[in-house]
Amino acid sequence: MKAEILTIGDEVLRGEIVDTNKSFLADRLLGLDIETHFQTSVRDDPPAMIDAFRRAATRSKLTLVSGGLGPTRDDLTAEALAEAFGLELVLDEAALETIRAFFRSRGREMTENNVGQAHFPRGAEILPNPLGTAPGFSIAQGMTHFFCMPGVPNEMHRMMDEQVMPRIEAIRGEGLAVRARLIRTFGIGESSLDDTLKDIAASGDVSLGFRTAFPDNYLRPLARAATAEQAEAALDRICDAIKQRLGPLVYGEDQQTLDAVVGQMLAERGMTIAVAESCTGGLIASRITDNPGSSAYFAGGVVAYSNAAKSEMLGVPAAVLEEHGAVSDPVVRAMAEGVRERFGVDIGIATTGISGPDGGTTAKPVGLVHIAIAREGATYADSFVFRLDRTRHRMLTSQVALDWVRRSLLGAELVGPTWAQR
Amino acid sequence: MKAEILTIGDEVLRGEIVDTNKSFLADRLLGLDIETHFQTSVRDDPPAMIDAFRRAATRSKLTLVSGGLGPTRDDLTAEALAEAFGLELVLDEAALETIRAFFRSRGREMTENNVGQAHFPRGAEILPNPLGTAPGFSIAQGMTHFFCMPGVPNEMHRMMDEQVMPRIEAIRGEGLAVRARLIRTFGIGESSLDDTLKDIAASGDVSLGFRTAFPDNYLRPLARAATAEQAEAALDRICDAIKQRLGPLVYGEDQQTLDAVVGQMLAERGMTIAVAESCTGGLIASRITDNPGSSAYFAGGVVAYSNAAKSEMLGVPAAVLEEHGAVSDPVVRAMAEGVRERFGVDIGIATTGISGPDGGTTAKPVGLVHIAIAREGATYADSFVFRLDRTRHRMLTSQVALDWVRRSLLGAELVGPTWAQR
Repeated sequence: MKAEILTIGDEVLRGEIVDTNKSFLADRLLGLDIETHFQTSVRDDPPAMIDAFRRAATRSKLTLVSGGLGPTRDDLTAEALAEAFGLELVLDEAALETIRAFFRSRGREMTENNVGQAHFPRGAEILPNPLGTAPGFSIAQGMTHFFCMPGVPNEMHRMMDEQVMPRIEAIRGEGLAVRARLIRTFGIGESSLDDTLKDIAASGDVSLGFRTAFPDNYLRPLARAATAEQAEAALDRICDAIKQRLGPLVYGEDQQTLDAVVGQMLAERGMTIAVAESCTGGLIASRITDNPGSSAYFAGGVVAYSNAAKSEMLGVPAAVLEEHGAVSDPVVRAMAEGVRERFGVDIGIATTGISGPDGGTTAKPVGLVHIAIAREGATYADSFVFRLDRTRHRMLTSQVALDWVRRSLLGAELVGPTWAQR
Repeated sequence: MKAEILTIGDEVLRGEIVDTNKSFLADRLLGLDIETHFQTSVRDDPPAMIDAFRRAATRSKLTLVSGGLGPTRDDLTAEALAEAFGLELVLDEAALETIRAFFRSRGREMTENNVGQAHFPRGAEILPNPLGTAPGFSIAQGMTHFFCMPGVPNEMHRMMDEQVMPRIEAIRGEGLAVRARLIRTFGIGESSLDDTLKDIAASGDVSLGFRTAFPDNYLRPLARAATAEQAEAALDRICDAIKQRLGPLVYGEDQQTLDAVVGQMLAERGMTIAVAESCTGGLIASRITDNPGSSAYFAGGVVAYSNAAKSEMLGVPAAVLEEHGAVSDPVVRAMAEGVRERFGVDIGIATTGISGPDGGTTAKPVGLVHIAIAREGATYADSFVFRLDRTRHRMLTSQVALDWVRRSLLGAELVGPTWAQR
């Protein structure tokens, strides 16, 4: 079953937004063993849209469309699709009432331009949108089934999962089962990874893809087999072999972020953590608390940007700050130990560094960072020079600090990323 | 001059990554007054790649390609392009030496699979890649100029800016000048925005696009004129009219994030800030410190996730926590005042709420959040219920808090987003 994805919007073609809808939809299709053969983006321009709709109708069994359903004058999906296939555009009273009710429930008044959102090509099935004013619709034309969804990501996600997925399952035929997994590694470069896994990749029953997703490198084993069970079994085999080869360089699979993995390990052990951040400026705390349930293991943190904050909020002795400077081994150790003690937790982690673009000296260049982890009776610290822009410097530093928590809990060596060090 | 963008990679078509390269490239082209007419993504599959290369050669003057230049066995851009046009694939010794030197400078050994990255279609011009091992290349075929760049974003960005942009400027002809701006608003919904600006949008000499970029709504005026000066003048007119109409709902233009705008306002006034975060968990501090130079105005912050941290690190009286609960007006005020006092700054901001998915009660539902801002002699606080998932709840809360700093410094009313409240 050939599928294609079509996103509509000047903002996409002009590069004003990053189009996350295509990747979301392709991932959902893959979950149904359907591979996407084309991804296309066209403007809010009726001739281009009409052309794209007509091409899809001649080559794909399934066409997922996002965008162009909003209330503004550049939202033209329904009109263009109707014109592409010579259909009449008709008002759907039920949809209009739903839009009215949406505004009423929020105590707002419906503006006149929302009426346009209740017009659809004749014969279309309306797909409700509980999160917004733009209903979607589905219609079969030529060889394809069109599913038109809003461009606003959360509205589209819900419509895809609740309305579109069950309809696709109903219309698709049976085919080869396709299963894929993502193995997340941190600390090894892409070339070394490829080299290390050469014999495993060449084993044949699955294909092994590589991908850099800063600061990580991902592996993507993909299996095709007669049944889903056979594909899963082939994946189990290669994933086991990869994990055995790479050891602690593998931190998670699929959607497991490093912060989520660390959180789960802490929760399982009934342990608590607090963070003292200078150069990462709250990023580590923010990543930890991004996970639901993090209050079980995260007590809090101090973003100690100024020297005064390092002394007063974390108890770093002023004399140590003066003698060694804020970016130094004794200070990062004192920060980690101080936050551990003040928050009364099992593990304290700390960062201090020069993320740039300014603030470096010959002795302490831009990119220098000290990282520490304090546990009962032992503090470990090391320094790195990451020659990266500010955002990536902060991100990599937070990743090393979180990875040290994971490695410390596993009893593995506390190392940094080989590919990023001076 | 018609341009198209082609990205290559199974990871794109399978939805494993969000393809930010297309938006980056389209934006850069727009900066040269070149509009992108097609965006296509194909797999690491030679027949699909060959077909895409050949189509581009018949319809576009300019084709920007990203992906498929890496060292692994699924990187096939050079081979496929050579085959598409019957060209020989040749080893470039200079490129190979550069790749060797890249590894040497990092104290690593070149693996054999990196040799493949030094093969190019005969006649190609090599584009150096100072950030990685994959050189790019440029070659003219049919009516198009191909520029093939790596898929790794930071490598591609630099190659585009330093190598490709000057070459495009050299080959493009003169045309109509196209200029666009982005006006960033916070606090007003898309329909209301469209309604409010109806007469301005209809004035004719520019087109006005709308875009939701949670938690903001953006306006995108775009002007086409005989000269760049005329286009800029038309944009000046409409932007002035929009700003006058919307007042403090507009916080910035183009790449100005709200955190950067707030930072600049604080720096200009020589004022300092500190943050006390519960539900936002470090996100506000992280956003502020994402900006270079933030140490001039940001003293630090406390992420007070536990009640103990709220008392001990911020001085919130235990009795107040007990009587009103952590998510309450008296607590958020005490947090803002406490962080302001402890860090000795001009402005303290604080958040406490229930971002979910769990932890709500009937009296204090999931989504409830209290936000406070403390300045010399006056603390202001309010509460909202944002019915959003955890990530968006935290993001919106951080946006309101930062917007209050901006509004407070402007002397504007401290309001929340009308579209998001119960």
